[in-house]
Amino acid sequence: MAQRIGTSTVLLESRPSVLSFAAIGGKKERQGPLGALFDATSDDTTFGKATWEKAEAQMQKLAMETALSKASIRPEAVDFVFAGDLLNQCISSSFGLMALGIPFLGQYGACSTMAQTIAAAGVFLESGAAGLCGAVTSSHFCSAERQYRFPLEYGGQRPPTAQWTVTGAGAVLMSEHKPEKPYLSAVTVGKITERGVCDAKNMGAAMAPAAADTLAAFLRDTHSDPEQYDLIATGDLGLVGSRLLRELLRREGIELSGNYRDCGLLIYDREKQDVHSGGSGCGCSASVLCSLILPKLAKKELRNVLFLATGALMSPTSVQQGSAIPCIAHLCRFCA
Amino acid sequence: MAQRIGTSTVLLESRPSVLSFAAIGGKKERQGPLGALFDATSDDTTFGKATWEKAEAQMQKLAMETALSKASIRPEAVDFVFAGDLLNQCISSSFGLMALGIPFLGQYGACSTMAQTIAAAGVFLESGAAGLCGAVTSSHFCSAERQYRFPLEYGGQRPPTAQWTVTGAGAVLMSEHKPEKPYLSAVTVGKITERGVCDAKNMGAAMAPAAADTLAAFLRDTHSDPEQYDLIATGDLGLVGSRLLRELLRREGIELSGNYRDCGLLIYDREKQDVHSGGSGCGCSASVLCSLILPKLAKKELRNVLFLATGALMSPTSVQQGSAIPCIAHLCRFCA
Repeated sequence: MAQRIGTSTVLLESRPSVLSFAAIGGKKERQGPLGALFDATSDDTTFGKATWEKAEAQMQKLAMETALSKASIRPEAVDFVFAGDLLNQCISSSFGLMALGIPFLGQYGACSTMAQTIAAAGVFLESGAAGLCGAVTSSHFCSAERQYRFPLEYGGQRPPTAQWTVTGAGAVLMSEHKPEKPYLSAVTVGKITERGVCDAKNMGAAMAPAAADTLAAFLRDTHSDPEQYDLIATGDLGLVGSRLLRELLRREGIELSGNYRDCGLLIYDREKQDVHSGGSGCGCSASVLCSLILPKLAKKELRNVLFLATGALMSPTSVQQGSAIPCIAHLCRFCA
Repeated sequence: MAQRIGTSTVLLESRPSVLSFAAIGGKKERQGPLGALFDATSDDTTFGKATWEKAEAQMQKLAMETALSKASIRPEAVDFVFAGDLLNQCISSSFGLMALGIPFLGQYGACSTMAQTIAAAGVFLESGAAGLCGAVTSSHFCSAERQYRFPLEYGGQRPPTAQWTVTGAGAVLMSEHKPEKPYLSAVTVGKITERGVCDAKNMGAAMAPAAADTLAAFLRDTHSDPEQYDLIATGDLGLVGSRLLRELLRREGIELSGNYRDCGLLIYDREKQDVHSGGSGCGCSASVLCSLILPKLAKKELRNVLFLATGALMSPTSVQQGSAIPCIAHLCRFCA
């Protein structure tokens, strides 16, 4: 049985395992520091499809198929797949995963989706409702620009606080506990947090308070300190947001040290790749988790990791109507 | 522990209870046959807000607050809330429920969201991760028209197969088993189904195959027949879709009889209210469940109900790109 402790943390006593995982990336992601670690990348970011939306759906399919293939598992063996993305009505997930024929539960957590889908899969496994679950998400620079900002052809200027939406996807296959595999030991589900930031070109600032709240809640709920973990990785706060996170936590007496990283700063070389404050998007934390973090857990180079993905829950309509940006952060603790 | 049986059904052995529920509606819904059964309705469909999107968010807030108040429970006591809606990035849910400060897991199942949120809440309760969960969804005629079709001012013509998006919301508060309360005994999670229907003005036809697949899967998984249930209620197939559902099931040797109803046909008077094929939207099944079906379960006038909500997972972008409409249906079995 799962055990709920403190304000919003769940301990997963059955230790659901990470059986397999896969990371897919675009051209720019391949050129970044993690490029060689992706399972597959595409030269032209269309992944052979006619539209960017279809390319993004194809990335989810490829990520899930690759994770299945690495574990020698057929899609029919998967009980449920939890998936979501940034596109309106989450069409990357529904169109991407439809052909696999797995019972589907669509999730919406914006860029926190990788943590949310893993958390949900973990609880379903813990309950006995499932023996094998998928958790999948994606983002695509071109589909996100078109939907959230401007058509690419417009050539809009980006301020230094802006982040670059990662073209990437990640899929994690989770099962009942298997010895020798990394496992999910706890999750903290975030509350929606809004501190008045209205600037959709500064997502790091909007999301940092949500990350601070969820991480502080987890540390309080588990009576632990940041230095007990090998790695604390936020999803896509970027340079601006991760500095703010350190500052916000410092005010609560929590000091993040050298074990803190942000996936948005790991995926690109900011000196050479012109991404301003860093990477963002569901695919940012998903592809860094599946290319860098989970492989190190599988090899036991890391043994105790907090993965904290943040999401900005606004829409272009809510921004146009003058509303500030509500944000959320969910945390997964992986052990090996 | 939950038990997974057959292809995609989960039996909830702990029998999570429906502690409380609330239905909110607009003006047209109040004028319909269920009008007197709503907990609250608004005269002008703006619910006192400046935009329709904010009105829809307000309906979710009102639904959840009313369900909490009917059970004399404070929001702080709720472990998780599962919520989603039709608007881009599910802003009705995030903006509507933010002030309640409950750990939040956004769901996207289009018009199947009420069943999906209840199913997820049920499994979380079963796992021990939660003792009290909310499940909330909404839709609003005006925000849906603006987003999916045309601005209302355009005055677009509606074909006879079109449905009318319900302005309504429903919230269900679920807890560990409480004697005397209705409970959730099983859920079936649907697969994404697409049979080539491209016409976004005929959602009933697009969604009927998903409903048929999920209902047939449940009956097969549980070795039961339609006549064993007091009521089988689909979410929003409307006249066209519910006729198709009967026909599709007949081909599989399953006969739906007088115990079958569609929420989209229950909520409006089709003779007087000019809604063409019937009601639709997340708020359709949600408000009928919470105004008509759950009250009858609570009074034991119904004892064994299948609630089968369907969703069309397309977006305006996917329709413009010529893709057919992928659909899904999730089933909840309630007992009293």
